[in-house]
Amino acid sequence: MSIHGGRGGRERLVVIGGDAAGMSAASQARRMRGPDELEIVAFERGHFTSYSACGIPYWVGGDVSERDHLVARTPEEHRARDIDLRMRTEVTEIDLAGGRVRARDVETGEESWTSYDKLVIATGAAPVRPDMPGVEAPGVHGVQTLDDGQALLDTLSATRGRRAVVVGAGYIGVEMAEALIKRGFEVTVVNRGREPMSTLDPDMGRLVHRAMEGLGITMVNDTEVTKVLTGDGGTSLLERSREPGGGRVRAVATEDAEYPADVVVLGIGVRPATGLARAAGLPLGAHGGLLTDLGMRVRGQENVWAGGDCVEVLNLVSGQEQYVPLGTHANKHGQVVGTNVGGGYATFPGVVGTAVSKVCDLEIARTGLREKDAERVGLQYETVTIESTSRAGYYPGASPMTVKMLAERRTGRLLGVQIVGREGAGKRVDIAAVALTAGMTVEQMTALDLGYAPPFSPVWDPVLVAARKAAAKVRAGSR
Amino acid sequence: MSIHGGRGGRERLVVIGGDAAGMSAASQARRMRGPDELEIVAFERGHFTSYSACGIPYWVGGDVSERDHLVARTPEEHRARDIDLRMRTEVTEIDLAGGRVRARDVETGEESWTSYDKLVIATGAAPVRPDMPGVEAPGVHGVQTLDDGQALLDTLSATRGRRAVVVGAGYIGVEMAEALIKRGFEVTVVNRGREPMSTLDPDMGRLVHRAMEGLGITMVNDTEVTKVLTGDGGTSLLERSREPGGGRVRAVATEDAEYPADVVVLGIGVRPATGLARAAGLPLGAHGGLLTDLGMRVRGQENVWAGGDCVEVLNLVSGQEQYVPLGTHANKHGQVVGTNVGGGYATFPGVVGTAVSKVCDLEIARTGLREKDAERVGLQYETVTIESTSRAGYYPGASPMTVKMLAERRTGRLLGVQIVGREGAGKRVDIAAVALTAGMTVEQMTALDLGYAPPFSPVWDPVLVAARKAAAKVRAGSR
Repeated sequence: MSIHGGRGGRERLVVIGGDAAGMSAASQARRMRGPDELEIVAFERGHFTSYSACGIPYWVGGDVSERDHLVARTPEEHRARDIDLRMRTEVTEIDLAGGRVRARDVETGEESWTSYDKLVIATGAAPVRPDMPGVEAPGVHGVQTLDDGQALLDTLSATRGRRAVVVGAGYIGVEMAEALIKRGFEVTVVNRGREPMSTLDPDMGRLVHRAMEGLGITMVNDTEVTKVLTGDGGTSLLERSREPGGGRVRAVATEDAEYPADVVVLGIGVRPATGLARAAGLPLGAHGGLLTDLGMRVRGQENVWAGGDCVEVLNLVSGQEQYVPLGTHANKHGQVVGTNVGGGYATFPGVVGTAVSKVCDLEIARTGLREKDAERVGLQYETVTIESTSRAGYYPGASPMTVKMLAERRTGRLLGVQIVGREGAGKRVDIAAVALTAGMTVEQMTALDLGYAPPFSPVWDPVLVAARKAAAKVRAGSR
Repeated sequence: MSIHGGRGGRERLVVIGGDAAGMSAASQARRMRGPDELEIVAFERGHFTSYSACGIPYWVGGDVSERDHLVARTPEEHRARDIDLRMRTEVTEIDLAGGRVRARDVETGEESWTSYDKLVIATGAAPVRPDMPGVEAPGVHGVQTLDDGQALLDTLSATRGRRAVVVGAGYIGVEMAEALIKRGFEVTVVNRGREPMSTLDPDMGRLVHRAMEGLGITMVNDTEVTKVLTGDGGTSLLERSREPGGGRVRAVATEDAEYPADVVVLGIGVRPATGLARAAGLPLGAHGGLLTDLGMRVRGQENVWAGGDCVEVLNLVSGQEQYVPLGTHANKHGQVVGTNVGGGYATFPGVVGTAVSKVCDLEIARTGLREKDAERVGLQYETVTIESTSRAGYYPGASPMTVKMLAERRTGRLLGVQIVGREGAGKRVDIAAVALTAGMTVEQMTALDLGYAPPFSPVWDPVLVAARKAAAKVRAGSR
C-alpha cells in the first residue's frame, strides 16, 4: 500500500463515484477553479462515467441502438479537463479524521490512500436484490448499470425461449416490460402492490394496469415472488444441452403460483449505496441516504459534500426527507456541490416529487403527494379526478387524459397531481410542479394563463379543469 | 317598436353576444341561480353560439371535417338550460340610464327594447380590414367567424387557380398559411413586420421564417399590401366567363411588387368590437377594449360586466393593460362574470401573455414580455438564447428546440420566454407561464423539479438550461 499526498499549495478535491452527480460536481468545480488552484481526483469502480442509467430500458428495448449513446462524457473527455480520473478503482474506506480515502484497483487488488482537502461522495444507488432462493441464477438480471444492461442484452440474444417475467411494477419495471415486449417476449409483471406504479394512488395505477394489459402484458398484482426456480424441470433436454451449466432460471414462484420464465428482470427499485458513508460514521436518514444541508454539504461536516442517488432530499410539500434517485436531481446536485466546493454559492432547495414515465404510448406522471403521503404527514385534503383530452376535442389526435389532484383542506394549497394519458399527458405535470414549488392554491391555479391552441389543449387545459373542480370542493368543504 | 319588461320578482340578466364569454357567463349565472330567481336573455346576431373561432384554420385546412365540430354548445342546448337566447338579433344600443338595450331582428329589421337588472357585454372582436382599394372584392376573406370560414371554404372549392396570398403573419396568418398548403395552394405570406410572428422577438421570428420557407411557403417581410387588384388583367377570358360579375381578386400589390392571387386571406388581427360600449359612454382603454375591475365589472358601473375579446386585461408582468383576444381568456372571463352576476365571488387577476401556435410540425410559443415590451415599461433585462432538444439526445424523435429567456437586471425576475421547436416545444411554455405568475427569479427556476425521463426531456430540461444561463448572466451583470 502506498500513500498519495503532498501537492504543494493546491487544494485537492476527491470525488467518489464517476456518474452524474460526481462528475457534474467535478466538472463544475473545475469551471470555478483552474488546475493551478484545485487538483481533482475522481474514483470510479466501473467501466463508464457520466452515463444515463435512465436510458437503459430504451437501449434494451432497441430504441437506442448503441450503449455509447447513453454516455454523456467519457473518461477521456473528463481527463481532457484536467480531472485525474481513476477508473476501475473502488474506494473502500473514508478516513474522515485523517482526511483521506483508501482505494483499491479492481483488477490488480492494489490499495492506496489518497488525502483530500475536500471530499464529494457520489456513490449512487444499488439495486434491491431480494434475498430469495435462485436470485443469483443465470438469466436473472438487475438493470442499474450499463454493465447490467449489456449482460441482459446478451441473455436476451442467447435465450431461445420467449417468456420474460419482470419483478416489480415501478418505473423500471414498466419500462422494462415495454422493452421486452419490443424484443418480442411474452411479458408477465409480478407486482407486490395493489396496482402497478405505486408512486401513483391505486385508482390511477389501475389505469396503468388496464393499459398494460391492453399492450399484451400480463399483470399479476398483490403478489410477492418468493423464489426463482432453476435448471431441470420445464426446460427440455435439448435446451439444457445447449445451455451448459444448468441451474438457469426457468420460472419464478409466488406463494400460489409459478410463472415460467426464460429471463427474469428485477425492477424492484434501488437503495442508497451508503455502506462507505455509514462505516465512516456519516449521518444517514430514515431511508438510508446521506443527510446534507441545503448546499449539499454533509450535515456536521466541514469539508464533505454529497449528491445524487446516495442522498436524501427535502420534499418541499411534505416537509420531510425523501429518497428520490433520479438523474435529473443528481445533475442538479453535482452542479450545486461543484459550485460550493469551488468557492461559490448554490443551494438545492428540495424536490416536489415529479416523475414521468411511459409504457408504449401511455404517459404516466406525478408530482407532490399521493393520498397516503398526505395522510402520513398529517395533511387533510380533498381529491378530484377529471377526464379531459390532450387537444381540443375536435382536433385530430386528441386523446383522453385523466388528471387527479389533491388540495389541502381549508387552505386549498395544491398538494399533488397525477396524470395518466397518451401523447401530451406526461409533461403537463410540470405545470403542477411549478405551482407546488410556488405554494399556489388550486383557486389561484384556475386563473393560470396556460398555452392554448386547438392542437395543444382544450380551451380549458386538463390541469385547469382539475383545479377548478378541486377549488370548488375546497370551498364546499370549508362551509 | 315594442318594449319588453315587467317580470315579477325575478331579476333579469341581459347578455350581449352568444360566443365563449357571453354564453359561459350565462351558463355559470344559471348554475348559480335558478330560473325562478334569475331570468337570462342573451342576444346573438350571428347563426352560431359558443364556437371555437381558434379552430377555424383547422377546419379550413381539413383537419376538422365538420363545421359543427367547432360548436361547443348549440342554441338549443343553451335554451334547454333556461336561457332565453335570441339568435340573429343584434343589439344596437345600450341605454345605461334606463337600464335597457335596444335589439334588432337581423332578418325582419324589427326593433325592441329589453330592460335589464344586470348586463353582460361580450361583443367580441372584429377583424381588422385594411382600408385599401379592392379589399371588398370577391375572393378576399377574413376568418373571424364560422360564417367567414364557410365563405372561404366555398371560394377555395370554386377557385380553379392555386395561388393564395395571406396578408399578415401573426397566429392567424401562419395557421391559415398551413391550412392553404394543406388544401394544395401555393402560398405567399405578405408581412408588414421584419419577421413573421411579431409576438416573438425578431430573432425568434426568424426561426419561424426559415421553417415556413422549408414548408414551401413564400415569406415576404417588411412589406405592406397597398391594394387588392381585381378583375380583368391576369384572368383568362374562359375564367372570367365562369365567374361572372368579374372584379374578382387577381393579385395583391405592395409598393414594389405584385403577388398573383386566386384567393386572399386577411390575417392581420382583430380589434375589440366596442362600438356599442363606446356609444354608451363606457370606459375604453388605449387598445379600444372595455376596462373592467378584477371581478370583470366595467369600471365605474354598478351592474354592467364585460368579458372576452371586447375587454382589455392586466398583464401581470408589465403591470399594464393589454389586448389579448383568446378563447381561453374569454372562457375564464365568462366563468368569473357568471359567478359574480350570480351573487358569488370570483376574479380574473390578469394574464402573463401566453400563446402557442403551430405551422405544420413547427411549434411556436411565448409568454411574458418581449424585448420591446420590457423596454416600453422601463424594465432592464438580460436575454439568453439556448439550443436543446425535446427528449434525451439519444432517444428517438429528439428534436431541436430554441428557448429565449428574458430576466430582469438585478432582481433576476423572469420576464419572458419564447420557444420555437418541434413536438414537445409548445406546451413547455407553461412552465414559464406558471413561474411568471408566481414571480419567480430565473435563479429559483434552476431548481425546478420538472418531469424527467428520456422520452420526455434531456436530463436538464431546455427551460432549465435557459434559466441556468440567464441566472449566470444576471449574476455577472450584478457585479
